[in-house]
This record gives sequence, structure tokens and C-alpha cells, in this order.
Amino acid sequence: MIIYIRTMRTKDEFKQEALFKATVKLVNEIGFVSSSVAKIAKEAGISPATIYIYYKNKEDLLVCTYVNIKRNLSKAMLENFHSSLPIRDILRNAWFNMFRHITKYPDYFQFTEQFANSPYSALVNSLDVDKYFEPIINVLQRGIEQKIIKPVDFDILFAFAFYPIITLANPRLCDNFEVNEKNIETAFTMAWDAIKL
Amino acid sequence: MIIYIRTMRTKDEFKQEALFKATVKLVNEIGFVSSSVAKIAKEAGISPATIYIYYKNKEDLLVCTYVNIKRNLSKAMLENFHSSLPIRDILRNAWFNMFRHITKYPDYFQFTEQFANSPYSALVNSLDVDKYFEPIINVLQRGIEQKIIKPVDFDILFAFAFYPIITLANPRLCDNFEVNEKNIETAFTMAWDAIKL
Repeated sequence: MIIYIRTMRTKDEFKQEALFKATVKLVNEIGFVSSSVAKIAKEAGISPATIYIYYKNKEDLLVCTYVNIKRNLSKAMLENFHSSLPIRDILRNAWFNMFRHITKYPDYFQFTEQFANSPYSALVNSLDVDKYFEPIINVLQRGIEQKIIKPVDFDILFAFAFYPIITLANPRLCDNFEVNEKNIETAFTMAWDAIKL
Repeated sequence: MIIYIRTMRTKDEFKQEALFKATVKLVNEIGFVSSSVAKIAKEAGISPATIYIYYKNKEDLLVCTYVNIKRNLSKAMLENFHSSLPIRDILRNAWFNMFRHITKYPDYFQFTEQFANSPYSALVNSLDVDKYFEPIINVLQRGIEQKIIKPVDFDILFAFAFYPIITLANPRLCDNFEVNEKNIETAFTMAWDAIKL
């Protein structure tokens, strides 16, 4: 089945993926300012002219790379999502999924952290990103209505329910935190204690 | 009194401060790779030769800038620190102090976030930084001993007790979060709920 899907991928998709990986790699290594379209093209092994088929300019490429990472994250978080489960179970599943995803792709999150602190972040339509996380937002909303979750802004809920993962999964910030099931469970309990009523 | 302190500052201190500000500004604008000692010197209005009086090289300058920001943060957090107060009150005071400090100097935290995700972070002796936060660490330790705080790694405690501030005080991440006393208090309550037993 995996082979079937793979053979179905077009040349275009391979180029897009090479471009995505090259953008993340180069920006992480030399920063946003130095990462020119020419250098990214070289790193991806495609011609700069090809980049301009897909993207208007460097800004467009960077913003799309960021949105792409967020979409991938939301997909990972929503694996085995069952809206009929108790709210705590749904969030716990999303928490573990997010932990696995960030631990597997630390370079993507290095990119997004840098991106969020760069002027490019002003170019993102946050509604575009928010819509990927809509099922999670709906669960939190339901939790508030059912008086299970504290009735506070979603920004605050996310700051406690999910952002600590980005800190804990970053070995550069948390060199003592060992990523294992027990520690991830402990941290989830704390996230839940923070947001539950 | 303020004038007296100001006149007591040496030329050296002014140069150091200009250098500190220029390093933060330039790195935030053009990134670590492009920020050469020559460019930083120019931004600070001092000669590159002068930089080498204080710092061995670019790495040394960047690491010291980072450590300096952390020291300033710890000083701000520890304002009105009274170890005899109840643990919740001590942490609440540190939380409000940290919020004010980060809101006042967002560029410093843009620098530290980028720094923490850069290879330079490996050059920091984390014990050097940890010692500035020792009074806070001691309070958490006491809280654990008195069965007030959850007995988990300090990395996890910090991820919930203080790191959410960095997210919430960043308007690029949290455009809906209004920094006012009520919202900061709400968020502190959640941090406390996360770490208390």
C-alpha cells in the first residue's frame, strides 16, 4: 500500500518536497536573510526558474513552508482523533501525537520558532493556520461549554495545553528532560491541571 | 540619585551597553550568520579593535550577550523577592516581574529564542545561567519537599511555571492575548494549577 502511494507521487511532488526540505535546512543553517532563492534552489537541486513556477517570491516560499509545517503538525495531532471520546482523552492523544511529531522533526520546529520571531510572521493569515487546528479548538470550546475547561482565551489554553511541548521536546532548552512515555504522561497531567476547571 | 549613579558610569560601561544593544538589534534584523563583528562594531559606533578588548571573538560576544539577557531577566524576576513569603506568593511575584520584563524588552527575547535554536547555544555553560535563577530553583525545591509542588524535574516545572510567559508576551504568537493585570493573573493561576500538588 505504501509502495502504491509512493508510485502515485508526481515529479512535481518530489520537487516540492525537495524545495520544502532545502528551505528548512538552509534557513536553519544560515538564517532568513542570507537564504536567497538562488541558494535554496541550489540546495534543492532544481533551477531557480522552477521555484518561481510554484512561488511568487522568497516571502511566498517562506510563508508557504511555515504553513506547510503547521498543516503537517495538525495532521499528526489529529491522528486517531475521535470526537466522541472524553475531552481529556482527546487532548491526551493529541499531546502524545504532537510530542512524537516534534521529536521526529526537530528541524521543522527550529524553523517555525525562528519564523514566528521574524517579520515574515506578519505575512501569515492566521485564519489559514487556525483552520487546520479547528477540531482541537472545537474540543476546547466544548470543554468550556461543559464546564470541564477554564473559560479563558484560546491563546492562553494553547500556551499551557500544547506550547510546553515545544520547550520540552527541544534538547537545547531542556537537556535534563528525557523524552519517554512516563515523562510525557507527567507533563500532560500538568497541562491538563492547568486548563481544567 | 539617578543622576549620581549615571555620572558614576564609566566610558567602558557605555561602550559595553552600546555593544550589547547593537548585537541584539543586528542579530534580530539579519540573523546570526550575517552579523559579523565588523557590522556589530559599526552599529555600536565603536571600532572592531575595541570589541576584541572585551571579547575573544564573535562566538564569545554572542554567548555573553545571551548570558547577559538571562542575568537581567533573573534580576527582574527576583525584584521584591522575600523567601519568607508563601511559595505561591513568591512565584506569583516572579511571574508578574517576568511578564513586565519581557513585555518591556521583547527584542531581548527574540534574541534568546533565536539563540536557543542556534548552534551557539551549545557553547553556553548552563550552570552559569542556572546560578542566576538559584533563588527560584530553591523555592521550587522547598515546594517539592513540603509537598506543595509536584515532584518532577525542574525542566518540566519551568516549562509550565515560566515558559508560557514567553509565548503569551509575544504578540506574534498570541495576537488575541491582551497583556493586562487580569489576564496575567489568569495565566498565573493556570501555571500554579499545573505545578502544584
